[in-house]
Amino acid sequence: MMDTGFTRRLDIQYPIIQAPMAGGPATPKLAASVSSAGGLGNLGAAYLSPEQIRNAIREVRQHTSLPFGVNLFAPEPSSESEETIAAMNRFLQPIRKRFGLALQPSMPVQTELFEEQVHVLLEEKVPVFSFTFGIPPLDVIHAMKREGTVVIGTATTVEEAVMLQDAGVDAIVAQGSEAGGHRGTFLKNAHASLIGTMALVPQIVDRVSVPVIASGGIMDGRGILASLALGASAVQMGTAFLASPESGAHPVYKQQILTANEDATDLTYAYSGKAARGIVTEFMEEVRVYPGAIPAFPVQNALTKDIRQAAAQANHPGYMSLWSGQGLRLATDRPAAAIVKQSMDEALALLDNLKQLAAE
Amino acid sequence: MMDTGFTRRLDIQYPIIQAPMAGGPATPKLAASVSSAGGLGNLGAAYLSPEQIRNAIREVRQHTSLPFGVNLFAPEPSSESEETIAAMNRFLQPIRKRFGLALQPSMPVQTELFEEQVHVLLEEKVPVFSFTFGIPPLDVIHAMKREGTVVIGTATTVEEAVMLQDAGVDAIVAQGSEAGGHRGTFLKNAHASLIGTMALVPQIVDRVSVPVIASGGIMDGRGILASLALGASAVQMGTAFLASPESGAHPVYKQQILTANEDATDLTYAYSGKAARGIVTEFMEEVRVYPGAIPAFPVQNALTKDIRQAAAQANHPGYMSLWSGQGLRLATDRPAAAIVKQSMDEALALLDNLKQLAAE
Repeated sequence: MMDTGFTRRLDIQYPIIQAPMAGGPATPKLAASVSSAGGLGNLGAAYLSPEQIRNAIREVRQHTSLPFGVNLFAPEPSSESEETIAAMNRFLQPIRKRFGLALQPSMPVQTELFEEQVHVLLEEKVPVFSFTFGIPPLDVIHAMKREGTVVIGTATTVEEAVMLQDAGVDAIVAQGSEAGGHRGTFLKNAHASLIGTMALVPQIVDRVSVPVIASGGIMDGRGILASLALGASAVQMGTAFLASPESGAHPVYKQQILTANEDATDLTYAYSGKAARGIVTEFMEEVRVYPGAIPAFPVQNALTKDIRQAAAQANHPGYMSLWSGQGLRLATDRPAAAIVKQSMDEALALLDNLKQLAAE
Repeated sequence: MMDTGFTRRLDIQYPIIQAPMAGGPATPKLAASVSSAGGLGNLGAAYLSPEQIRNAIREVRQHTSLPFGVNLFAPEPSSESEETIAAMNRFLQPIRKRFGLALQPSMPVQTELFEEQVHVLLEEKVPVFSFTFGIPPLDVIHAMKREGTVVIGTATTVEEAVMLQDAGVDAIVAQGSEAGGHRGTFLKNAHASLIGTMALVPQIVDRVSVPVIASGGIMDGRGILASLALGASAVQMGTAFLASPESGAHPVYKQQILTANEDATDLTYAYSGKAARGIVTEFMEEVRVYPGAIPAFPVQNALTKDIRQAAAQANHPGYMSLWSGQGLRLATDRPAAAIVKQSMDEALALLDNLKQLAAE
C-alpha cells in the first residue's frame, strides 16, 4: 500500500500509472492488467476513431471493474504549406518505392476528430481522462469534471504546469527528458524543454497545488520511491511495460526494447513532425540530413504512416517508430501485473532499508 | 546520520559531496564549509597551477581537519589545426575589440601540467582525488590509492562507468543530463550521452560494484532521498552551492543562478570546446551560428579566457560562462553549512513521512 492522497482520489491501490502509449502498445489488455494489479491502466486512444475508442473502453471493462484512463492529444491548429508537404513527399518517394507503396499517401481528415473522441469518453463516463500536446478547450475539461472524470494534463516545464493548473486539471504529469515517445511540450520548443525528471518534478511540485505524477526514466521500485521522495503523488511508467506480453508493441519493437542500451535513443521529428524520443533508426538518420522543413504534426505523421506500417509488416525496425525512454537496460518482458506488484514491493523494501540506514 | 557504507569509507557524516566546480566557484572556503558541516567539500583545481593547488589545499586544512577532495581533468590528447584556431580567432576579434582586449590571446602551455598537479596531491596526501573527462594514466590511480587517497571517476553512460571500475576507481559519479558545467563524457559524443539522472543512476548501479554518486538536478533533501532510493551511495550537488556566500562565483553569476528558471540552460561548446551546460548567454547564441569547427578543449577555452575575464570585470553576464544545472528554481543563497544540514534534515523527515504513508 502507498496512500499518497492521489491514489485515494483515483481509487487505486498503488501510485503506478501505465503510460498511455498511443499507436499500439497501450492495448485494452495492458490497461486492464495494470488496473487489475492495483495501478491505473491507460488507453492511448489519440489515433483511434470514436468507434474504436468505445470498443477499447468496453474491452477494458470486460476484464476489470477497477478505474482506468483514456488519453487523447489536445488538438493543435496546424496548417502546412502545400510546398512543404510536396517536398517531403518527394524525399519519401524512394523509401515508399522500396516498400512497394503507393507514391502518394492519403491524408486523413482530422477535423472534428477530437470532439468526437471526447464525446465517447463522456458517454462512457471514463474514470480518468488525460491529455498531452497542450490544453484542450476549457469546456471539455469542465464537461469531464462534471461527469466525475479525473482530468490529467501533461507538462514539460514549470510554466506549462502552472497553465494546466489554471485550466482546471486535477493532476499534472511532469514529463522529464528521459521519457519515451512524444514530448508534451506546448509552450517553448521541445529541446529547450528537456528537463530531467530529477530536476523537473520538485520544481513543478513547488509551484502547483494539484498532485504531480512523475514520468521519464522510471522503471522499477527504485524509480517509484525516488519519485515519491521528489514530491510526486504517483509515477507514470511506459517503457517498463512496453515489452510485457500484454503490450501491443510489435515483436521486433519489443526485441529492440529488451536489447538496447540507455544511450540508444534520441529526440526526432522524423516520424510525426513533433519531437519524440525513440531508439535511433535508419529512418531517423536519413531524415536528419533532410534539408527542408519537416511538416508539423499531424501532417508528417500522416505522410509516414504507410511506411511505418509496411516496415512493421516486413519486420524491419529501421523504418518503424521505436519510441522509448532512457531506462532501456531495466526493461523486462514480465507480465504487466508482475511489473506493478514487484515494483511496488521493491519500493517498500527499499524504504525499509533506507529507514534502517538512517537509524544507524 | 545516513550510513551508506561509502560515507563510512570517506569518514563523512552525510552522503553529500559538493561538486568541484572549477574556474572559481569551488573555493577553499566553500570546500571547508561543506566538510565542516558533515559533507565532503571539493576543490575544483583543474585550472590551477601546482602552487595554487598547494595553497588551496593548505587553506582548506586551516579551516577543517575533516576530509575533503580535489578534482582534476584527465588529460586528453588534443591537437587542433592552425587553420581552425585562426578561423575562430577571426570570429572572436569583434568581441575582443568590444572589451578592449589584445587581438591575439596567449596560448598557455599545458604540457606536463597534469603530472605536476598530481604530484602536489600526492605530496599533500589529499583524502579524496576525483577526476572527469576520461581516465588518467593508471599509474596515477595506483599511486593515489597507495597513499590512501580515495579515487573517484566521472561517468555519463554505463559503458564509461564500467571502464572506470576496470581502471580501479573506488567510486563513480553518475553525471545525469541535468548537471551543470562540463560533461564528463569520454566515449561517445556528449549529446548521445545525455542520460537523465533518474534513468542513469540505477542502470550504472546495476553494472558496477563500487559505490555510485548521483549528480545532476539534485538540489535539496528531496533529491538526496531520491538518489539514495535509486541506489546511489551519495549525491554530488553543484548548482545548489553556487550562490552560497562561500562560493567564489561572480556576484552577477550568482544573481543569474538565483533568478533563472529550469529551462534557461543549454549545452554549449562555445566557451571551452567541450560540451557544458550553462544558462544561455549572448556569446552562446553568437557562436551557435559560427559556420566553422569550434577548436577542441582546451584550445577554445584558452581562446575565450580573456573575453570571459573582461566580461566578468565589466559585470556583463552575456560573455561570462554561467555553468548551471537544471534545478535552478531551487537554488538559494544560504550558507553552505545550512544547505548541507537542512537538506539532510529534509531528507530524513521525508523518509519518515513516506514510511508513514506506506503504513497507512
